[in-house]
Order: sequence, then structure tokens, then C-alpha cells
Amino acid sequence: MATVTVRNGINVDQLIATIGAIQDQPSSSTFTFKATTEWQDGTLNQVEIKDFVHDGKRVERPQAYRLTGDEPPVLLGANRGPNAVELVLAALGLCYGVGFVANAAARGIELSELRYEVTGDIDVQNFLGMTKETRPGFSAIHARAWVRSPNATADQLDELCQYVQDTSPVRDIIANATPVETSLEVLA
Amino acid sequence: MATVTVRNGINVDQLIATIGAIQDQPSSSTFTFKATTEWQDGTLNQVEIKDFVHDGKRVERPQAYRLTGDEPPVLLGANRGPNAVELVLAALGLCYGVGFVANAAARGIELSELRYEVTGDIDVQNFLGMTKETRPGFSAIHARAWVRSPNATADQLDELCQYVQDTSPVRDIIANATPVETSLEVLA
Repeated sequence: MATVTVRNGINVDQLIATIGAIQDQPSSSTFTFKATTEWQDGTLNQVEIKDFVHDGKRVERPQAYRLTGDEPPVLLGANRGPNAVELVLAALGLCYGVGFVANAAARGIELSELRYEVTGDIDVQNFLGMTKETRPGFSAIHARAWVRSPNATADQLDELCQYVQDTSPVRDIIANATPVETSLEVLA
Repeated sequence: MATVTVRNGINVDQLIATIGAIQDQPSSSTFTFKATTEWQDGTLNQVEIKDFVHDGKRVERPQAYRLTGDEPPVLLGANRGPNAVELVLAALGLCYGVGFVANAAARGIELSELRYEVTGDIDVQNFLGMTKETRPGFSAIHARAWVRSPNATADQLDELCQYVQDTSPVRDIIANATPVETSLEVLA
């Protein structure tokens, strides 16, 4: 009777099967993800994330994820949620976390603790229309990780950390240029 | 007696005062934002966003924002929250939303509706370590906006949409290269 290999909560057999399925049918590695935002009032917006497209087919999750975006008072909001650039930092930490844990599992590395603190430095003068000499976005992002493993050496963990950076979707999106096309429809 | 100009829920007087304050003290335009992520199990991570640094001083919000990150089953998770790349798309929609509403307010444009749908196309083969020929992140991001205004022309709204793209922090972070430095501390 087959037993399932689960390490760090990752089903390693499923991971290997997923890679095998993509080798058999390369289009099964393609996804289109989606988020919608709806303006409420002032700097307050509601996000909804639910379905995505996998290999050309729509996948509906059983429930939608909703979150509230807002600004702190110093940026004209009322602290009803995190702001957009904070969510970018959160996304990087989440992406690193998933990549680290999954790749550790595939390598036989057990983890007992993994945390990221991600910070980003920004000057809002461009956003406020005061200058074009500074960029609108973060001038720099710093991610610090803390990891604990009962069976890996520091060298193995350092190498894994580098590998995770090299293959991280969100790091790639941030660190390299990603095409963004934006269109507007004016409602009557 | 002074009256306060509020348009689209944006306090325009405060916006003008903020710009004036930055002109008087340029360092007041600088922020360091932060998000922390803590791995739970498998692809499940918890995000916390609370304090930030403004003009060199720590600002504590009264409450922390927490959100759960996870993957859908096809990516080894259990649908307990959105994934990292979906949050990047949400961040872009939020950033555009805030920029559009605030700049509309400054221009005297009233809005009654504003929605964004943001999609991103990704091939997970690089993330899964199967190839380096495709990039880890989104190959393309598409943002569609729908706007309704009782007092602006389509041309004014199109011009505003372009201005918001040009000054959007999150669009800049995604569309252009942003330095990311990552360090690891191995806990004993």
C-alpha cells in the first residue's frame, strides 16, 4: 500500500505528479490570475479574488477572498486596511515563504520556523505630482528571513534561499520589468 | 468660517496642505512600509501589516491587518486564502484606484463608480524548477478600468487614467526594475 510523502505540510508526491503532468502536457503550467477592486469612498477600496484560469479552463474557488485597502491618515485615509504598496511587500514575503517551504520539502529539508520581514522605501513626491526626479515606486526593497531547520546545514539553507529568489514569481515581477497594459472604459 | 473641500471622499484641503508640508520639509515625503509573513504549514502563511516609518519616525496604527495566504489545490494548497501573485494584482488595482480618485478630486472631477479588473498571465514551469526559458513571474498584466463621472468628459477621464499610470507606485514597481535585497538568518 502506497504511503504519501508529506514534508513541511507539502505533499511531495503531488508536487512530483504535478511536474510530471506538465511534462506530459506543457499547457497545464499556464495560469491567468485575477483580482478586482471596487472603489468605495475616498482612499477606501474593496478587493475580491476568486476564480482563475488554469490551462485555458476557468477554476472557481468555493469562496471569494475579500480585503479592504485604505491609506493611513497621513496619506488621506482612515486606516481601514493596508495600502497598495504594503500589499506588494506582503506578496513578496508570501511568495518567498511558499517557494522556500516547497523546495525544502522536495530536497528533504524539514523546517520548524520561517518568517520574512519585508520593507520598502518610498518617496511620495512623484505620486503627489510634485516631481518626476524620484520614481513613483519603491527605491529599494529589503527582505529579511529567519529560518529554523532540524536537519539542514546553514550552507544548505543559504543555497536554498538563493534558489528561491531565482525562481520566485513575485521577486521576478518586482526586480525585473513586467509589461502592464491598462485600458479605461467610460460608463455613460 | 472655513469650509472643508471634500470631493470623492478625499479631503482636498488636506491634500493641498500635505503637498505644502512636503515643500517646506522634503523629508516628510519619505516612508518605509513593512509587511511580515509567518509560515504556518504547507503553502499556508499569515501576513501582518501594522506600523510604518514616516519621515524617520515610526507610526503605529491602532490595529494590525492580518491576512492569510495560500494556494489552490492544483498548486498544493487548500484554498485558505489568495496566493502571492493574486495579491500583486490586487495591489495594482488598489493603487490605481487611490490615484484615480485622489487626482480626480484635485481636478474637480466627481466620480460615482470606479472598478478595476486586473489579470496576470503566468507559466509556473520556472517556479517548479523545470525550465529557465520562461520567466518565474507574470509574462503580462492587463488592467481594465470602468469609470463613471457626472461632470467629466471621456477625454478628461482618459487623460486622468494615463496620468494615474504614470504616477502609480505599484505600476512603477511592476513595470520597471526595483532593487530587491534578500538576506537569511539561520536560527539555531
